[in-house]
Parts: sequence; C-alpha cells; structure tokens
Amino acid sequence: MNSSQHDISSADSLARRRHGQHVLSQIDGDQGEAVIDSLADINPAMAHHIAAFAFGDIYDRPGLDPRSRQLVTLGVLTALGGCEPQLKVHIGAALNVGITRDEIAEVMLHAAVYCGFPKALNATFAAREVFLDRDRKREHAG
Amino acid sequence: MNSSQHDISSADSLARRRHGQHVLSQIDGDQGEAVIDSLADINPAMAHHIAAFAFGDIYDRPGLDPRSRQLVTLGVLTALGGCEPQLKVHIGAALNVGITRDEIAEVMLHAAVYCGFPKALNATFAAREVFLDRDRKREHAG
Amino acid sequence: MNSSQHDISSADSLARRRHGQHVLSQIDGDQGEAVIDSLADINPAMAHHIAAFAFGDIYDRPGLDPRSRQLVTLGVLTALGGCEPQLKVHIGAALNVGITRDEIAEVMLHAAVYCGFPKALNATFAAREVFLDRDRKREHAG
Amino acid sequence: MNSSQHDISSADSLARRRHGQHVLSQIDGDQGEAVIDSLADINPAMAHHIAAFAFGDIYDRPGLDPRSRQLVTLGVLTALGGCEPQLKVHIGAALNVGITRDEIAEVMLHAAVYCGFPKALNATFAAREVFLDRDRKREHAG
Amino acid sequence: MNSSQHDISSADSLARRRHGQHVLSQIDGDQGEAVIDSLADINPAMAHHIAAFAFGDIYDRPGLDPRSRQLVTLGVLTALGGCEPQLKVHIGAALNVGITRDEIAEVMLHAAVYCGFPKALNATFAAREVFLDRDRKREHAG
Amino acid sequence: MNSSQHDISSADSLARRRHGQHVLSQIDGDQGEAVIDSLADINPAMAHHIAAFAFGDIYDRPGLDPRSRQLVTLGVLTALGGCEPQLKVHIGAALNVGITRDEIAEVMLHAAVYCGFPKALNATFAAREVFLDRDRKREHAG
Repeated sequence: MNSSQHDISSADSLARRRHGQHVLSQIDGDQGEAVIDSLADINPAMAHHIAAFAFGDIYDRPGLDPRSRQLVTLGVLTALGGCEPQLKVHIGAALNVGITRDEIAEVMLHAAVYCGFPKALNATFAAREVFLDRDRKREHAG
Repeated sequence: MNSSQHDISSADSLARRRHGQHVLSQIDGDQGEAVIDSLADINPAMAHHIAAFAFGDIYDRPGLDPRSRQLVTLGVLTALGGCEPQLKVHIGAALNVGITRDEIAEVMLHAAVYCGFPKALNATFAAREVFLDRDRKREHAG
Repeated sequence: MNSSQHDISSADSLARRRHGQHVLSQIDGDQGEAVIDSLADINPAMAHHIAAFAFGDIYDRPGLDPRSRQLVTLGVLTALGGCEPQLKVHIGAALNVGITRDEIAEVMLHAAVYCGFPKALNATFAAREVFLDRDRKREHAG
Repeated sequence: MNSSQHDISSADSLARRRHGQHVLSQIDGDQGEAVIDSLADINPAMAHHIAAFAFGDIYDRPGLDPRSRQLVTLGVLTALGGCEPQLKVHIGAALNVGITRDEIAEVMLHAAVYCGFPKALNATFAAREVFLDRDRKREHAG
Repeated sequence: MNSSQHDISSADSLARRRHGQHVLSQIDGDQGEAVIDSLADINPAMAHHIAAFAFGDIYDRPGLDPRSRQLVTLGVLTALGGCEPQLKVHIGAALNVGITRDEIAEVMLHAAVYCGFPKALNATFAAREVFLDRDRKREHAG
Repeated sequence: MNSSQHDISSADSLARRRHGQHVLSQIDGDQGEAVIDSLADINPAMAHHIAAFAFGDIYDRPGLDPRSRQLVTLGVLTALGGCEPQLKVHIGAALNVGITRDEIAEVMLHAAVYCGFPKALNATFAAREVFLDRDRKREHAG
C-alpha cells in the first residue's frame, strides 16, 4: 500500500482528502473550498495536500482549540507578509470561530510590536476588506 | 510638554517606563527584565520603548486576553525566524500565562503549515531549551 | 495615572498623539495623515500608536538627522518586501527631506547587493509611481 | 581603467552590458528585455547591472546547467514572496529551458514543505497567469 | 476511520510514517533520521508529519527527479535564511543525489542575485561545514 | 572578449576584482578582506563577485556618499535578519565612515518601528559585540 502513498487518487488518499475538505468547510466555509477548487486545473496535488494534510491532519488535531489555532495563523500570516489572499481567508475563519472584529484589529496592533507597523498595516487593511465584504453580504441578505 | 515627548528621562517618560516594566515583570518575570537591563549601556532608548511602548502601551491593553496575546506572539516570532532569543522569552511568558508545553508544541506544528517546517523546527528546539531550563531550575529548587 | 496608560483617549494620550501627528505632517505631508485617517474606523489604536509612538516618540528624537532616518527607512522597507504602500509614503518623505530622485534610485541599487534584485526592482517601481505622481501634480498646479 | 569601473557608459561597461543582454534574451526572451527597458528612465544603473552582472557574469557561468539555474531561481523567488512579477518572468524562463508545466507545479508543491503553503499558493497562481498568457498567445498565433 | 485521521498512532498513520521514514533514510541517510529522533520527546506529531507528509507524501512523488527536488530545496532554504541546521541536512542530501560540491557553491552564487549576498554567504558557510565534516569522516574511515 | 566575461581569472576580471578589493579595504578594512579570503577554498567565484561587483561596481559609485550607503546597508541587514556576521562587518564599516555609536544605536531603534523589536534587538546586540571588540583592541594597542 505504502509504495503508492504519494498517489493522490488512491482510495486512501481520496478518503483523507474528503475528510480534510469536511474540516476545511467547517472552518472556512465557502472561501476555503474556493481556494481548493481554484487549484484543480494547475496544481491538483497542492489542492489535495492542503485539504488532506493541512486540514485533515493538522487543523483537526485536538491539541489546540479552534480560537487558538486562528490566533496563531493570524500571527504567522501577518508576519510573513505578502500573503494577503490567505490572510483574508483566515480572517474570515477567525470570525467564524468567534474572534471579534475588535480582537482581530488588536491582533494586528500586537503583531506590530514584533514584525513592525508596515506588515501590521497590510494585515489591517486586509481585515477591513473582509469586514466590508461581510457587511455587504449581510445587507444583501437582510 | 510635548516638545520633549521624545526625552526618555522626563518625569512623564519615567512614569511610562515604570508602568511598562511592571507589566513586563508580570508577564515575563526575570527574563524580560534581563533583556531590558542588557540594553542599558548600548541602547537605553530601546530599553525605554520596549518597556513603555511594547508593554505599557500595548501588552496592557484590555482588547486581548494574555493567552491570546502570547499565541499571536509565538506565531509572529516563529514566522519571522532568526529571533530565537526573543522567542525563548515569549515561550517562557506563554508558560507563565498558562499555555501548556503540549500546546506550545502544537502551535509550532500548526505554524509549519503556513511558514514551513524549517522555521517550525527552529521554534520547537527553542521551546525545548526553555522547557529543559525550567526542569533544571525546578530540580535545583526541589 | 499609569493604570490607564493604555487608554488612547486620556488627556495624556491625546497630547502624545497630537504631537506625533504634528511631527508626521512635517515629514510626510498629507500622505502620512491619510494613512492615519484610513485606520480611524478599523483600528483607531493603531492610528494612535503610529502617530504617538512612531512619530512623536521615535522620529522626533534628535539622535539622527531626518535624511539619515529616511535612508534607514528606505533600506528597511526595501528589504522587508511586500510593503510597497508604506514604501511609497516614505519615498515621498525622502523627497521632502531633500533626498534626490537619483539618490533614491541609488539606494535601491545599493540595497540589491544585500537583499537581491527582485525586491530592489519592486522598490524602484514604487519610486517611479511616486515620481510620476509628483510630476502630474506639478503639471496640474503649473 | 579601474578608477572608472563604476562608469556604466564606458566602452568596457557597454561591452559587458551588451553581452549580458544577449544572455538574457536567450533565457527570458522578450520578457526579460522588457524589465530592463522599463528601468531606462528611473534606474539605468540597475538595468545595466541586471544585464551585465546577473546575466553576463552569473547566468552565463558553466557551473550549473540552465535547467538547474531555473529550479534554484524558482525556489528562491517562491520563498522570498512578494516578488510575483519577477517570478513570472522566471516561470517563463523555466518553460523556455524545457521545464514542463507539471514540473513547475511540482516545484511549488515541494517548496510548500519548506516555506509554507501561502507562499507556494502565491507562486502557483503566478504560474497559472504565465500558462494562460502563453495559451492565449498560441491561440492568436495559431 | 477518517474521524481519527489526525491520530498519529493509528495503524494507518504508523504505516504512513514508516514509509516516510524509509524515503527519508534513502535521501538524507542518518542525518534526517537524527532530526526526526530529536523531536521524539518534545513534538512527536511534528516528527510524524515530517516523515509521513514531507517525505512519504511529497518527496516520494514522481513529478520531479531527486536532483531537481534538492536544487529547489537549496534555493528555498538559502532564501529563507536562519535555517542553517536544515540547510546543512539538505546540502548533505544534495551530495547524496549526486550534486557536486562545485554545483552547490554555484547554487549559492546564483541565489545571491535573487536574495542578496549575505544570505548566500550564510548558505556557503553552511556548505563548508558539511564538506569539512564529510572530509573528516572519510579520513577516519580511510 | 565577452564570450569569456564569466571567466573570473581573465585579465579583465582580475583587474575588476583588484579594484573592488581596493574599494573594500578602504571601507571595511581587514574585516571585509577576511570575508573574501574565507571564501577562497569553497566559493572563489562568490569572493570574486563580492569584490568586483558589490564593491568595485556598486560601492564605488558616486551617486551616494559613504555615510548614506552605510545607513542603507544597516537598514537592509537589520530588516533581513539572520545576517549578523555581515551586519557586524558593516557596523564596523559604519564606524569607519564616521557614523557614531549613538547613531548606530539610533538606527536600530528607528528600524524597530518598521521591522519590529526582535530584529532590532538582534542588530543592537551585534553592534555591542563590534563596539566591545573595538574597545578591547584599543586597550591592547594603548
């Protein structure tokens, strides 16, 4: 079996991926799935491993509650810089697990001490886009 | 008054710094103070602003609980890389606010998804040094 | 007093912020103020600390002349990468303190030795946008 | 002679640059030349050194075959992050030296292990833009 | 089955890990295994995923030959910086798959164009340590 | 001639290198030469290009005075992080061109606003090592 572990279309791999996509959809909703889908044509193996590994193997581990995972994720992505699309997905995920808008702004202010104001500003403006987007969707649904 | 705002030895600045050092000592214990003291000869203004600004102004804000601040800090420092001395201080601070050793290891595993395994490994080995150091101190005290 | 040091709407904090905004407006003109204003809704505390700390506490210090501060800032922002909006503000500030366009181009060429050509190219293209923008404004005013 | 080594318009410098531009045009085709040309007004010395040094001195060295140079370049640019315009030029160059689209996608998946999925995703989306652009050009030419 | 996908001690997970460690030992020899072992006490889940995911899932994929994977890895680790311990493991792996010492030096020179000389110097000095270590071992064995 | 431009042992290349080493020795004194010499066995081409390109081509350009070049260099290296050996060489060079110890400390404090306190702390401690080393040498010479 193991000799084909790398085969992303084996039954085992498909089961792992399906489970990961279930975890992902619970955390990120439609947005995460959209990232996975957008990889289908160009890098299906990356789509597979983001689902199966990042979400099925790691996010689903009981060692850290969802709020804590998102706080770490926001810290890492703010510090990396240049990952605004991914940051926006995870700002949405942070809202989904109950982190408030004010707390997200506070995360970015706190991060500024350690990674400087420019990256913290970029993260803050990414957050504003997510918040405005949610407001718009709420209005349309209201 | 403001024209001398930058003066780190004014009465206002000293009060700001004293407050910051109080906040710092509650979070990081002796380790944080050691960093501040080590700057006295070479960069006293940096010592001042780490205390007055980073701890007095930011850490003390009520917008985020201490556990959340430390999770963000660990995420940022793991992602930055090359900041192992500061990471070790904040791994200690994380233990001080009740984050467990297993949770700290989980933070680094989670960060690996976003900033890669090499930086996550560096952070994990920094954590081990802090844990071993605490074990040694406990034995000596026991 | 100190127990509320973190309170950005105290009289002390407002005085600190007002002073910082004065320093900022002298360096960056309208552009810096625009960044501060753009944070009002989403992260007012970050706006406060960029003004009060970054400009009131640090920029205003006599330890480094304005030209030197801007040279360091350009070096840091070029090396960080991904901070083009902030870099553009500080390219404007560099022009304001008398650093010439040719010197700014030379800064980016020099930085390439240390942080590589791709980041130096990004910084150069950010500089061009600032220069073109100034040219346009001059024409409209002329 | 050497006292004017820095002079980019000396006969020696022009010969170095001409040779570098020849190497560049063989690797990157029109795209690389476009980057050089785009610097003519703002940073001609950077244009000179990208041609003369990066391509004439380094790329042309026999110590590494063209395929290997491009694999290293893709790895470095993916890890740096925020250099998508340069990455796109070098994804084109990778195709030019015979690296396949599937291999380029695999490079980004492999890089994810070391620099994390967000930067690998950015690189993958940059690759897609290059691939789509080539498809469009082929259709128009067909 | 999937509900316990995250369980690193399930039969499935152990099989995945065993396969990954086999792949790892073929690439990195003892050095890679030493990294895995060094995590046993502090972060066994990270040890598991480096073996099962990074090596069993990714390294073993047929989409890129071993030489190409190592060239990408050297590029990424040189650009990241601060990951010298991991870089040294992969410089050893590069030698194991037939990349020569001169080619490794050339990789670092080539990387300097894109990530600057300081990081390329750090990588070069890491390479020297690996080369000297191999020389010493050969002498002792000779 | 150009077909062998990449040949670092041609007469032209040797002249370029000799000039670069002259520039380097004027800026960095013995320290810079030590870095070049330390590459002789492992990466002689990197030694060549640091001398011929970085110093002969770039540092020697009249477009920026030596003080300004060093301020930019300190900013870039502080922001990159993990380049403490190179930073120490350039802190020495900064002292050589007349930048004072207090100004160097101020550069690091200023950089903290943009790249965060941890990297600024690392740079400050690198500066202290350089300062102490100079004090020791002065005592021994006195």
